Amino acid sequence: MNATEIDKLINEISKLPGLGRKSAQRIALHLLKNKKHNLLPLSQIMKEANDKIANCEICGNIDMISPCSICKNLKRDRQTICIIEDISDLWTLERIGFYRGTYHVLGGTLSAINGIGVDELSINKLIQRIEKQNVKEIILALSTTMEGQTTSHVIVDKLESFNIEVTRLAQGIPIGGEVHYLDENTLSAAFKSRKKLI
Amino acid sequence: MNATEIDKLINEISKLPGLGRKSAQRIALHLLKNKKHNLLPLSQIMKEANDKIANCEICGNIDMISPCSICKNLKRDRQTICIIEDISDLWTLERIGFYRGTYHVLGGTLSAINGIGVDELSINKLIQRIEKQNVKEIILALSTTMEGQTTSHVIVDKLESFNIEVTRLAQGIPIGGEVHYLDENTLSAAFKSRKKLI
Repeated sequence: MNATEIDKLINEISKLPGLGRKSAQRIALHLLKNKKHNLLPLSQIMKEANDKIANCEICGNIDMISPCSICKNLKRDRQTICIIEDISDLWTLERIGFYRGTYHVLGGTLSAINGIGVDELSINKLIQRIEKQNVKEIILALSTTMEGQTTSHVIVDKLESFNIEVTRLAQGIPIGGEVHYLDENTLSAAFKSRKKLI
Repeated sequence: MNATEIDKLINEISKLPGLGRKSAQRIALHLLKNKKHNLLPLSQIMKEANDKIANCEICGNIDMISPCSICKNLKRDRQTICIIEDISDLWTLERIGFYRGTYHVLGGTLSAINGIGVDELSINKLIQRIEKQNVKEIILALSTTMEGQTTSHVIVDKLESFNIEVTRLAQGIPIGGEVHYLDENTLSAAFKSRKKLI
């Protein structure tokens, strides 16, 4: 087994999120057993992706063009910016398709443990964007974890001097959720934000 | 989201064994978020693997050379051939390291449901190999599933005319296994093959 290229391939694959050594081995074998149909197309699309895909200079999305197709789209409301942690959140929102504003990808949440401070996130870039552009509303769509809420607070602090509406997503019982399964934090948040019906 | 290269990349990744759409998306994002450190090395090693790695013309293993390093190794016992379903079985046996013979990778097991007949496996290649080469023992190391055992039977049939010892791996209680958890097939196999101690 001096097959270094096989080992290197397994090694690189095992670095991918969610994959361990065993599944990396399985994937490598799958690729190598039929190189023409499995390995070659993936290798080629990776090369193309590496050459063509770039980060959007405005919002941090990834796309074939920068500014990205959302930032460039004249039908999108540029006065509304939705702040998200990650590009995967953008994909989720785009898949649902109801949001017609633009985005700003933070690149994570503040986390002392992981050494992620304000400079690691694109918060300053957001401020610059707001200074240059006419923005009416900032929607904070961050996780309701400790880190997400801390990050929201920091952003709200920085935006206070601007004359912009800043909102966050509603917190409460998820649709389809059963009350007796809910944790106390969600339940008390849902109680506090209860809505008058009559 | 007209980013076709992103979609293509996710598509190709989601074809890998054990990965669904969601994990493919996560992996694609991981690759694209830091192209230099994540995407580029994987893309390069895939290209190299595609160029350099080949199937061994003798045993069906994958390696940088053909015949592979096991078939070429003069210290390996070429008169003993271990029949395995897949290259991953070869890797497992090589990792344990006690086996000093050579291999023959079948490429699966006979399966009517999956349309895998004798011609889909490298059974005829095995016969040719035995005809050319001086072989003393064939060790059948196939799964003890219905398909594996059918495959073993078919191979045994084809080898009967040769003057070769044909063995199969022992069946019984796995080491560390508890008797009361065992299925009846294993237990009855272990009873039938019980070993005299005194």
